[in-house]
Amino acid sequence: MHSRDYYLDLIHDAINALRFPREPQGLYDPITYALDCGGKRLRPMLTLAAAEACGLDPQLAVNQALAVEIFHNFTLLHDDVMDRADVRRGRPTVHMKWDDNTAILSGDAMLTYATIILAENAAECLPQLLAMFNKTAMEVYEGQQYDMDFESRQDVTVNEYINMISLKTSVLLGCACALGAIRAQAGPQNVEALYKFGHMLGLAFQLRDDWLDTFGDTAMFGKAIGGDILNGKKTWLLINALERDESGEVKKWLAINDMPAERIAAVTAVYRRLGLDTECQTEIDSYIDRAIAALSAASLPHDAKEFFTNLAEATRSRNN
Amino acid sequence: MHSRDYYLDLIHDAINALRFPREPQGLYDPITYALDCGGKRLRPMLTLAAAEACGLDPQLAVNQALAVEIFHNFTLLHDDVMDRADVRRGRPTVHMKWDDNTAILSGDAMLTYATIILAENAAECLPQLLAMFNKTAMEVYEGQQYDMDFESRQDVTVNEYINMISLKTSVLLGCACALGAIRAQAGPQNVEALYKFGHMLGLAFQLRDDWLDTFGDTAMFGKAIGGDILNGKKTWLLINALERDESGEVKKWLAINDMPAERIAAVTAVYRRLGLDTECQTEIDSYIDRAIAALSAASLPHDAKEFFTNLAEATRSRNN
Repeated sequence: MHSRDYYLDLIHDAINALRFPREPQGLYDPITYALDCGGKRLRPMLTLAAAEACGLDPQLAVNQALAVEIFHNFTLLHDDVMDRADVRRGRPTVHMKWDDNTAILSGDAMLTYATIILAENAAECLPQLLAMFNKTAMEVYEGQQYDMDFESRQDVTVNEYINMISLKTSVLLGCACALGAIRAQAGPQNVEALYKFGHMLGLAFQLRDDWLDTFGDTAMFGKAIGGDILNGKKTWLLINALERDESGEVKKWLAINDMPAERIAAVTAVYRRLGLDTECQTEIDSYIDRAIAALSAASLPHDAKEFFTNLAEATRSRNN
Repeated sequence: MHSRDYYLDLIHDAINALRFPREPQGLYDPITYALDCGGKRLRPMLTLAAAEACGLDPQLAVNQALAVEIFHNFTLLHDDVMDRADVRRGRPTVHMKWDDNTAILSGDAMLTYATIILAENAAECLPQLLAMFNKTAMEVYEGQQYDMDFESRQDVTVNEYINMISLKTSVLLGCACALGAIRAQAGPQNVEALYKFGHMLGLAFQLRDDWLDTFGDTAMFGKAIGGDILNGKKTWLLINALERDESGEVKKWLAINDMPAERIAAVTAVYRRLGLDTECQTEIDSYIDRAIAALSAASLPHDAKEFFTNLAEATRSRNN
């Protein structure tokens, strides 16, 4: 197995080598902008690592890795329109820099382009690649729909929340792993085990994101702490707090629109009083454990299992 | 060859048989609504006819026909958001009945679903089906981008307009034919000839649409006449009129916002004075002729050529 940095370099080079037609600029410039955004590139890294774990030269899975990354960025373009998000990774979102129509249409083109690049150099496993990719895409849309539905609901349960983040975020990490394995023509057992690894890792990843948004360190997290609290976003922390906080303090603070610093401090204090900071981390740990356990069903070289185990362990306590 | 009505019945039944998951309703109900809209079903009919012309039982190409129809309706959902269109085929558009976010997300799901159904029962020709479908999709987005770009430009030429409608509308009719032929495992010569037939038919179809919007009969056309004039839409008629009308009358009327009936009457009178009504029809006829000529490069049974020729002849003077 190569290192994480090696895979990231491959992805970085491949994204830089992408060339879209020059015209119409209004369609293609925003795609280049969106893909040039940095980001962790976790998903395409999983694809390359899974491919190599299953015996393929990771360079031969670069197209499938790009497909996942481009799909992910397409969803960000459309989600940012739907969520009226102005900033992403420190830069204006596409609909802010251009307009809504641009984000919609360039996003559509990214989705189709992801399917184009998914199919490149992979005729022998195309039906399986496409089935995995499309099934996951439908789930991601379902997740986004539930996320939007939850905004106007006051009775969202923790199980519903876990199902939502599973669809909206986690299945794409499972898919990223599975595509690498399928591209390497791995057997169904390895494909399924790596899918499950990615899926569980994705749940841990998203819960850790929720945790960091409240309990993280701004300097390391790279964005302001407390955004979820200010937006009243129904995260694992808030849903649990609303269920258990008999003082009604959280509800009271959510109804207030000003005093942001006080609101963050007060709601965070309730979370801590209820022990939700440690309980959330326990939940994260359990998904990390399940990710690692999923690897035991796969027949992979020792260093491949080690690679994925280390990646999962790093996610347990990631700070950014 | 079967009749047009036979193909339309197959499509009608297949659309009625589509079953989406019940949840989340906010994602799937708008898809059912959008597909239940009626419409001419010209594109999927072309797919079935092309498949049968190339020797395949048309029932075996129903999935590919549905893929084209679902893709087409996805573009309508997103275009209607971008163009702020409130009504389509006599009913509220999806973003009016629900909201913009619904039209965006359900549209995304339709695009992915089109790719799913395109691939069904077609593993042996999947790479070619997918390549044709995805290339066409990218062109359709380019066409929509040019169409939007043209709104703020005063110097659009007739050639640019033809290129725009070719991308936005006509290539999808070419693709519809080609997918049927590819599904029937036709050779490249038949695929290309049928693609060209559909492409030329599509240009004639769109130009006849422009013509009908000004010179048509409301009762037969099914929508109010003069909408393009009132919207200042840069159609073949308006672009030519702006180039040739030395009296400046068209520009004057375009600058006026009220008196809709007078505006329509005045601009239509200029079109007639310049002879654009007959000249536009001559242009339509030339594309119909090229569509029919394209058939001569295909080796198809006599009744198949007759079917496509009759279809083209009917488009020449269609009134709805």
